[in-house]
Amino acid sequence: MIRLGVIGYGYWGPNLVRNFADTPGAQVVAVADFRPERLERLGRAYPSIRTTTRHQDLFEATDIDAIAVATPVSTHHELGMAALRAGKHLLMEKPLAASVAEAEELVAEAARRKLVLLVDHTFPYTGAVRKIRELVAGGSLGKIQYYDSTRVNLGLFQHDVSVLWDLAVHDLSIMSYVLGAKPVAVSAVGQKHVAGQPENIAWLTLFYDDSLIAHINVNWLAPVKIRRTMIGGSEKMIVYDDLEPSEKVKVYDSGLTLTEDPKQIYQLLVGYRAGDVWSPKLETSEALQNEARHFVDCIEHGTAPITGGDNGLEVVRILDASSRSLSEQGRLIQVER
Amino acid sequence: MIRLGVIGYGYWGPNLVRNFADTPGAQVVAVADFRPERLERLGRAYPSIRTTTRHQDLFEATDIDAIAVATPVSTHHELGMAALRAGKHLLMEKPLAASVAEAEELVAEAARRKLVLLVDHTFPYTGAVRKIRELVAGGSLGKIQYYDSTRVNLGLFQHDVSVLWDLAVHDLSIMSYVLGAKPVAVSAVGQKHVAGQPENIAWLTLFYDDSLIAHINVNWLAPVKIRRTMIGGSEKMIVYDDLEPSEKVKVYDSGLTLTEDPKQIYQLLVGYRAGDVWSPKLETSEALQNEARHFVDCIEHGTAPITGGDNGLEVVRILDASSRSLSEQGRLIQVER
Amino acid sequence: MIRLGVIGYGYWGPNLVRNFADTPGAQVVAVADFRPERLERLGRAYPSIRTTTRHQDLFEATDIDAIAVATPVSTHHELGMAALRAGKHLLMEKPLAASVAEAEELVAEAARRKLVLLVDHTFPYTGAVRKIRELVAGGSLGKIQYYDSTRVNLGLFQHDVSVLWDLAVHDLSIMSYVLGAKPVAVSAVGQKHVAGQPENIAWLTLFYDDSLIAHINVNWLAPVKIRRTMIGGSEKMIVYDDLEPSEKVKVYDSGLTLTEDPKQIYQLLVGYRAGDVWSPKLETSEALQNEARHFVDCIEHGTAPITGGDNGLEVVRILDASSRSLSEQGRLIQVER
Amino acid sequence: MIRLGVIGYGYWGPNLVRNFADTPGAQVVAVADFRPERLERLGRAYPSIRTTTRHQDLFEATDIDAIAVATPVSTHHELGMAALRAGKHLLMEKPLAASVAEAEELVAEAARRKLVLLVDHTFPYTGAVRKIRELVAGGSLGKIQYYDSTRVNLGLFQHDVSVLWDLAVHDLSIMSYVLGAKPVAVSAVGQKHVAGQPENIAWLTLFYDDSLIAHINVNWLAPVKIRRTMIGGSEKMIVYDDLEPSEKVKVYDSGLTLTEDPKQIYQLLVGYRAGDVWSPKLETSEALQNEARHFVDCIEHGTAPITGGDNGLEVVRILDASSRSLSEQGRLIQVER
Repeated sequence: MIRLGVIGYGYWGPNLVRNFADTPGAQVVAVADFRPERLERLGRAYPSIRTTTRHQDLFEATDIDAIAVATPVSTHHELGMAALRAGKHLLMEKPLAASVAEAEELVAEAARRKLVLLVDHTFPYTGAVRKIRELVAGGSLGKIQYYDSTRVNLGLFQHDVSVLWDLAVHDLSIMSYVLGAKPVAVSAVGQKHVAGQPENIAWLTLFYDDSLIAHINVNWLAPVKIRRTMIGGSEKMIVYDDLEPSEKVKVYDSGLTLTEDPKQIYQLLVGYRAGDVWSPKLETSEALQNEARHFVDCIEHGTAPITGGDNGLEVVRILDASSRSLSEQGRLIQVER
Repeated sequence: MIRLGVIGYGYWGPNLVRNFADTPGAQVVAVADFRPERLERLGRAYPSIRTTTRHQDLFEATDIDAIAVATPVSTHHELGMAALRAGKHLLMEKPLAASVAEAEELVAEAARRKLVLLVDHTFPYTGAVRKIRELVAGGSLGKIQYYDSTRVNLGLFQHDVSVLWDLAVHDLSIMSYVLGAKPVAVSAVGQKHVAGQPENIAWLTLFYDDSLIAHINVNWLAPVKIRRTMIGGSEKMIVYDDLEPSEKVKVYDSGLTLTEDPKQIYQLLVGYRAGDVWSPKLETSEALQNEARHFVDCIEHGTAPITGGDNGLEVVRILDASSRSLSEQGRLIQVER
Repeated sequence: MIRLGVIGYGYWGPNLVRNFADTPGAQVVAVADFRPERLERLGRAYPSIRTTTRHQDLFEATDIDAIAVATPVSTHHELGMAALRAGKHLLMEKPLAASVAEAEELVAEAARRKLVLLVDHTFPYTGAVRKIRELVAGGSLGKIQYYDSTRVNLGLFQHDVSVLWDLAVHDLSIMSYVLGAKPVAVSAVGQKHVAGQPENIAWLTLFYDDSLIAHINVNWLAPVKIRRTMIGGSEKMIVYDDLEPSEKVKVYDSGLTLTEDPKQIYQLLVGYRAGDVWSPKLETSEALQNEARHFVDCIEHGTAPITGGDNGLEVVRILDASSRSLSEQGRLIQVER
Repeated sequence: MIRLGVIGYGYWGPNLVRNFADTPGAQVVAVADFRPERLERLGRAYPSIRTTTRHQDLFEATDIDAIAVATPVSTHHELGMAALRAGKHLLMEKPLAASVAEAEELVAEAARRKLVLLVDHTFPYTGAVRKIRELVAGGSLGKIQYYDSTRVNLGLFQHDVSVLWDLAVHDLSIMSYVLGAKPVAVSAVGQKHVAGQPENIAWLTLFYDDSLIAHINVNWLAPVKIRRTMIGGSEKMIVYDDLEPSEKVKVYDSGLTLTEDPKQIYQLLVGYRAGDVWSPKLETSEALQNEARHFVDCIEHGTAPITGGDNGLEVVRILDASSRSLSEQGRLIQVER
């Protein structure tokens, strides 16, 4: 039985509590939040969970094996290091940390102490993204040519990081899991529309060693919510619409064929095969439920998480390079590897 | 009665013939295409229209007042200059020409001879774009913050120009008509996925004097067709989906309000008002029909077209700067003004 | 503080527990279900709630003021009567009972004992249906001409009642709340496709005193889920799509105008004004939360619920007449009033 | 070369002219319409086609082999009989005639004179309906259980027939082509909302020898246009949405499996397999073009059309029975066979 403490009971914390409460082999022992009214709300639903306004109590508790941190990114390094130093396994809300240096320290500390560090990138635990990875890895798409994602929102502003750190982070974790390739350089452009606030709209392009190219469109001030990713392959293409209730992943049997018909001088040089569309059945279990079970499993068996510290660090490295490019109107920035 | 000659009866030419045949005050007198089988097809539908494989015949014809050119962009300058020199009014397929220098020559020649030069940017003649211009100009959106467009295709490759010249050109003409602002600089990134071919996927960002920013996503190798533009304003926002059969333009009564509630320390600093959605009734007449009538009208009254040579030249200037940025992985390029 | 007991912890019971647990002024004291594994699951999430496999325990408990029943319809009468006789207020899962006689007894018993009887028709507690009622009652739709609903499912079979009792019941409660008119007669047709099971597909038509007509299409074996209702008025029309995430209710500014132009002999006699579309902002609070608060409120203030016993009885009367029509291939059956 | 005369140049006539003008082996020789302004419009687009306000001219013309009639249904019998008696092959706008007796006479006359009689039911000539027929006939759907169609409109009123004759006629021709079964009896209900006009909203149910059941929802006063048909089979199901631009036909790999698990007493008795979704590539040629070619082909080879007189007569018989049921509030009416 893994006994869990949760720090932060704002937007995401309740989801962690609810899912771990329903996970065999796990038990939520205590929750810390500095806002008493949040703890009261927790108490109504889960009277048996201990509450405290001092997160230190959780580090000190001997009946806690693991800590989940669901607080703003600026606090991740401090809280995560304290948890690891107290010998607790760590589930850290994404992104792992606010800088490359901080992320590196967390990864190193977890490795030194042989503790599980899982970064809460949720998407690799969804049936949709797992199916996409299976299709890409199985080769049925052919050579992957592009990844193009639109992830725009009905406005939830965060005051401490730009929209890249808040929304593009999801695509970066999906790409890391699905594409099996690391970007060489990035170019990011965007704009601030609210005085004193970070960029609320941004477009990020990632360049790879070969002709693969990726692009992410993120926006906090969109009139509608969109979650749509296109993955183009030489043989097949995927459209992944996360808001589609029943057909989230569609596979298009279309691709390129070069034609060499000499008569078509002013015509197309490329034949485009449009064919059948196929929408595979997906696992429907809740992503966070899968992730909670995976965390318990990794602790019990001493295995590495799908979205471990290395993965979280890679995402932070890309975000860091993107932020620098963003501040220089799209100048090409190499990504450290 | 304006007597028209049409050069090029491939993809677009038949649309021009059909619409001008139905335009009061216009008459299609002759069509030139170097492919006899195209002319045969025309002959079956319109036996009374003269046909020729030599476009020179149209310049020489004394019973022709105006020429419409629907041929690849590399031929625009030569055919357009010949038409103007023959004293014919000119309707030129978009983009106006393949380079800034060529476009400038066409504009100067038309001005010198006092002939109407209309560039066939179709969108400003649609009910949807006219309504959007009316809303933006009327101020009901507040300060315009961004224009973000996705225009991706089920693959029709052109071998002579990149996807920017083929698809982004539409957004550039819409932006010129709707926003009433000219970009200062551009950054474009993209990729070639077919050997020997131009870029088939590209993302173009346009920077303006103030905090307005625009972005265009174009792709010839998308699995699905998308035509969707979001225009964000400080008071209201628009989603324009050109594939939506009956509600192409939606106006979202949502915008930003800064909140100053000191208690919300870790909370949102921006209040987002989500409100009603409104989809205005649009004119439903065919855009090309409106454009044909406008061309006839401009010739008869000696007035300047909505999408005249200056407009066509502005678009070519942006495309030219974008192409240079594209070849340098997004380097910021100033737009000549 | 209203102290609640819940009978039945299958599909719907957990929703009741979760919502009442979050309702100020209410407290879930005990849950009864004859399946111990369900109670174990409850215990993991809510260790402080008392559990029992004997529902009689709840009737006998002196610390319980109200009972919510979430069991199959065949058990409603027995459990409901026992609860009322024990002096408990009653929240009964829809439909109120399996026959008109049973429903009448429940209504009479609640009235005699001055206990609140709320039938758990959820839709009148949604922001969407409340807005529709407001629009209809305010007269802006003009004379209501038809209500036409499609409510089809990805197959959840119930073995004890036909699809009418399972799905059409929702529309009947919406219509009762929104239209303010009672049907005079019904005609229902349908089919059984599974041996030994009730009708899995059915279409129900309701006739009213005037030219209003209503139709409900229900199906347990549909390949897709649809929840769409059209309400036609002489001035405006509504489309209510409950699966639409953000624009559930759309109001169409279109209606009839008779034209008398004598030239249009073979032409339309009816001018159709297609105009703007408007999607009003809706309350987004959860329906069951609203309903739970309303139940507490009715008990505290002794007021009659929006979806009280009379309403539940009216719905059962229509379902009963519909079942008879269904068994006679659509024969017109009068509805008792 | 089949030389064609067309009677009626209102809404549908121009489509016939345009398609036959583009059909190899056919030539449109003359068009009759009693409205001179319609003929003028034709003359502008097709100056080489002869025009007349007297339809008798077409029957008398020796250079006409076949007549297409695109006039209101009340005139079909008279014009069709005159065309057949003049020895012309006949393409008749749907429905074939205004009564069973009239339709029988037309079929008999065409048979006696060995002339081709094609009823202009367009849907069997679409790629979508052809694919559906192929899937149903191939058995991959299993036993067909239901056909359920919604065909509602943004209001075009016809003053001479009810909405059943105008819209349900399309489904009846699709069902005849796809299902290969004839209905035994019908029940129709509906309402008139415009004084002096026929029913503008109606629901038609068709009963068959076995457990197959069909239902058609038609409405001239709907706020939105819908064209959606669900076909349920024991193995797979189809959703056919004719307004969907690229995925008109979707095949759902879902169906019923009876489960006999004795533990599930209050549970589902039917297991529902939800699986993959598949959208087959469809022929994209225009339906009316296919139909025009088929008409020419039938005349040249003396073969029977897919949508011949027998088919047209079957549809009229169902419509006639439906009209009687409609006037008696859904009374079950046998269909003559």
